[in-house]
Amino acid sequence: MSGWLAIAGLGPGSDALVTPEVAAALAGATDVVGYIPYVARVTPRDGLVLHPSDNRVELDRAAHALTMAAAGRRVVVVSSGDPGVFAMASAVFEAVEAGPPGWRDLDIRVLPGITAMLAAAARAGAPLGHDFCAINLSDNLKPWALVEKRLRLAAEADFAMAFYNPRSRARPEGFARALDVLRDACGDDRPVIFARAVSTPEESIRVVPLTGARPEMADMRTVVIVGSSLTRIIPRARGDIVYTPRSAPA
Amino acid sequence: MSGWLAIAGLGPGSDALVTPEVAAALAGATDVVGYIPYVARVTPRDGLVLHPSDNRVELDRAAHALTMAAAGRRVVVVSSGDPGVFAMASAVFEAVEAGPPGWRDLDIRVLPGITAMLAAAARAGAPLGHDFCAINLSDNLKPWALVEKRLRLAAEADFAMAFYNPRSRARPEGFARALDVLRDACGDDRPVIFARAVSTPEESIRVVPLTGARPEMADMRTVVIVGSSLTRIIPRARGDIVYTPRSAPA
Repeated sequence: MSGWLAIAGLGPGSDALVTPEVAAALAGATDVVGYIPYVARVTPRDGLVLHPSDNRVELDRAAHALTMAAAGRRVVVVSSGDPGVFAMASAVFEAVEAGPPGWRDLDIRVLPGITAMLAAAARAGAPLGHDFCAINLSDNLKPWALVEKRLRLAAEADFAMAFYNPRSRARPEGFARALDVLRDACGDDRPVIFARAVSTPEESIRVVPLTGARPEMADMRTVVIVGSSLTRIIPRARGDIVYTPRSAPA
Repeated sequence: MSGWLAIAGLGPGSDALVTPEVAAALAGATDVVGYIPYVARVTPRDGLVLHPSDNRVELDRAAHALTMAAAGRRVVVVSSGDPGVFAMASAVFEAVEAGPPGWRDLDIRVLPGITAMLAAAARAGAPLGHDFCAINLSDNLKPWALVEKRLRLAAEADFAMAFYNPRSRARPEGFARALDVLRDACGDDRPVIFARAVSTPEESIRVVPLTGARPEMADMRTVVIVGSSLTRIIPRARGDIVYTPRSAPA
């Protein structure tokens, strides 16, 4: 039996947001590889070996998964959300490109998932209903100057913006600087959505104006969405709705 | 029994990409509302009324769905992909904001789905693995000048870009102009992915350099992804992989 590698998105947390395609891949796998809390979401069973690993070892994890697939194992690399959005798919392909030529002959599939910003947007209303961008605020993998440049250009383009990894333990000051840049570029009024652990028992959704956004409102499980100039709030007794209309005026 | 409204994403086409949450909403619904080809994806059953409608009547469709929910029906508004990305969620909230105050008391949920760009990215590799933006190229709902401004700023920000509705029957020339802007702003080498009808029997994926991209490579069922300056191609016998590395150099 020949091996394969699936790079699968588990969605934001709830099993109700895992696609049947991903569930089928897990059911047919011999090995599951990933960051500890994501592997913990996979139900153990006979014949399935779980390989949890720590954060920041993405390339080692990718090489391990590729090596097992090349040896005939059926391997699923799990990410939360979508594996192609600030997650394991790019890491696996970096490893493929740098690795032995035989890895290019492997059966490798990417199985999409519900990425955090879309789960968060759905809970808040439809803040990403018009043009938008997604920016990873971690400066582990890129210089801060590039983050700031992108924030300013995204504001000038009047995109709604979704921010992944807004605040890491290692560099908590980055998000405070991002909020300063946004207040300077967008003014104070934009709705900001802090969506934490969406679809899990720890879910919380908080909407504040940009002027009231504080760095400590985000942690590693939070995705942050900042509206465009056209984003609106509908006040409601059962929770405000934040949405961006489909049209932009001429 | 009190009514509710779910605005649900059916994903790009395959049932294997419909979340269990959406399947459960459809199983509990009395009415399904949406654009004809999306409603056609819902399996008919006793007790379920299907309300297919033509394109470009989004606000009428939204008001119809809200009226039924207010009358106690259990209504699912279906979109392809994710309902919050250039789809029905914003239309429903526009109707709520403009409609009778009682609509604000309704139980309205948005159920996320696999949006076209993420399904397309998964098939091609991981072109959206670093910062990216999503732009609706249709100028039905916004002036062309805003589209062009966003394209130029997105190129300056060095985002990978995903384009929805690249080429409408009504205004086929817009996409040709977008490609001209991109060649001017990005040079000729960027990988461009034309992903059509992903996860359906009509799926096709085509990767060309920007200089080789032609307007007629896209139609209404195509999503187009243009890489950033860092996007790479891994040549393979079983189909090239297009991916954007996680890191940007200082």
